[in-house]
Amino acid sequence: MKIAVDAMGGDKAPKAIIAGSLLVLDEIESNIVLIGKEDIIKKELEKRTTDFKRIDILDAQDVVENEDKPVKAIRSKKDSSMVKGFEALKNKEVDAFVSAGSTGALLAGSLLKIGRIKGIDRPALAPIYPTRKGFSLLVDAGANTDCKPRNLLEFGIMGSIYLQQVLGINNPKVGMVNIGTEEGKGNRLVSETYEVMKKSDMNFYGNLEARDIPGGIVDVIVCDGFVGNVILKLTEGVAMNMTSMLKEAFTKNFISKIGALILKGGLKEFKSKLDYTEYGGAPFLGVKRPVIKAHGSSNENAIKNAIKYGEIFCKNGVIEKIEEEIFKIGVDNIE
Amino acid sequence: MKIAVDAMGGDKAPKAIIAGSLLVLDEIESNIVLIGKEDIIKKELEKRTTDFKRIDILDAQDVVENEDKPVKAIRSKKDSSMVKGFEALKNKEVDAFVSAGSTGALLAGSLLKIGRIKGIDRPALAPIYPTRKGFSLLVDAGANTDCKPRNLLEFGIMGSIYLQQVLGINNPKVGMVNIGTEEGKGNRLVSETYEVMKKSDMNFYGNLEARDIPGGIVDVIVCDGFVGNVILKLTEGVAMNMTSMLKEAFTKNFISKIGALILKGGLKEFKSKLDYTEYGGAPFLGVKRPVIKAHGSSNENAIKNAIKYGEIFCKNGVIEKIEEEIFKIGVDNIE
Repeated sequence: MKIAVDAMGGDKAPKAIIAGSLLVLDEIESNIVLIGKEDIIKKELEKRTTDFKRIDILDAQDVVENEDKPVKAIRSKKDSSMVKGFEALKNKEVDAFVSAGSTGALLAGSLLKIGRIKGIDRPALAPIYPTRKGFSLLVDAGANTDCKPRNLLEFGIMGSIYLQQVLGINNPKVGMVNIGTEEGKGNRLVSETYEVMKKSDMNFYGNLEARDIPGGIVDVIVCDGFVGNVILKLTEGVAMNMTSMLKEAFTKNFISKIGALILKGGLKEFKSKLDYTEYGGAPFLGVKRPVIKAHGSSNENAIKNAIKYGEIFCKNGVIEKIEEEIFKIGVDNIE
Repeated sequence: MKIAVDAMGGDKAPKAIIAGSLLVLDEIESNIVLIGKEDIIKKELEKRTTDFKRIDILDAQDVVENEDKPVKAIRSKKDSSMVKGFEALKNKEVDAFVSAGSTGALLAGSLLKIGRIKGIDRPALAPIYPTRKGFSLLVDAGANTDCKPRNLLEFGIMGSIYLQQVLGINNPKVGMVNIGTEEGKGNRLVSETYEVMKKSDMNFYGNLEARDIPGGIVDVIVCDGFVGNVILKLTEGVAMNMTSMLKEAFTKNFISKIGALILKGGLKEFKSKLDYTEYGGAPFLGVKRPVIKAHGSSNENAIKNAIKYGEIFCKNGVIEKIEEEIFKIGVDNIE
């Protein structure tokens, strides 16, 4: 198998991307195709290794930037690492595509160049949400801002299959974000979706209050992309601000400075628990071929794991399983 | 002036409610009318004071419970402290009504017994959101799960007036929760609302990413009630889980246990920064008479401040100012 990696996407590209790609070779069977400016990639590789056996380079002189309009970038930047990645994926020259580049452009590319799985109305971005117990999968994190019940149902099904096949969670529990736990609560979308979810084959936990998300009481967190994006970013914001406020309190006087030093180990351990880089990138679930979005600020460890879980994604036939499941339930009959 | 207080609402009722009502007397000019089971209230008062001068009791033998269906409870529990509070407010026997009881029932009572300010389509619940800098006002926190642009505009206007008149924030900055900062981003609701907000007289900051909410970069956080409820509860959940995880890390071994002891002061100071009880209750903005919802788990300090800011709410004519502003801009012309 071959996994294409966008060497130019992300805040720490190309260094972290190339370092992560070399790191993962021991843990996977696939070859890696690094896409981007050939001279730069070569130079970075030569700094790190003399063994180029399982690494190919696909030259691409252009780069899709975060500021680019997604659809326009995909249509016009034909020599970009991202568009070349999608072309290779579409032509089956590679089996999966991993990029830490612009989320919007990756979504646009997935839809324009690759297309949806038959029966899926709207693909979704499904990142890991670190919880107290380990992690949940958040579907959708921002690809679809206005949803129908059918979409949320698809998110639940696809998320369950991904967790089961790729991260080894057996019979994952699916919760739907709502403002109360009782049936019938919420806005029009979620109150209409409740019945649909309940009737489905998935392991439906029911409504999930946002207060209970960080505790990790479900495996799949289902919501529309607007709410999902708010959940992801707010969690980041609260954690960041709490950490800063604690640090301020800690360094205020001499005694607490000593305490802060002593506790450094504890804080480090705490931080590692919340380290999303361990669980790989976020797949675009519902796209016909495997597209994995790595976090924009991915370090080499995050890239390593995005590639590693990308391989498992292919090997364990996530897309085929989604196709089967969607065909079986005939989701097309749901509004 | 007279402020009615629901002595039976909230997790710590009636003790904390009565204690808070006595505490606040030194800081306000109004008299207080405690509503609830007269014998219980009397007993609690007698434990604490011999001076009943500015306290009246209005007997009500029934209680609206959190489990009650809101509309049904307001219609059928005629002898409840909450319904009697609304009746007194409606009949102008009191000037404001403070309750830590069921949010849903308080909203139902506000709509059924008191009614909306002319020109306001949907009243909103507006609690304080503690931030790194101090606080913001979150409108709406859950009263309206499906909104139109007109509603968000009203939330922004009412929130600005409340902050200015009651909490003394000059020319408050209004941000609209969105998944990106650029104009045109987001779901149908917020992308349509952007123009309406921009054209208005308010100090519109623009789109606000959830990541930036805890930092306190705006004064009024505008969103629909579904998103607002998620924001409020998720913040609580993240903070709670972070605190627990830190505590676990701190108490893992002897050295860090010492550190935890040293840092106790710092943590306490940190916690007090996030103490919402300082800023009073959450007004139902858009209701024709002042209704203040105190947090369900209010202690005496929270009740004290809910009453105190309730008096300022009346004194500074928040409702009249909302009426004027809404009349001026003719919000009825907006979808």
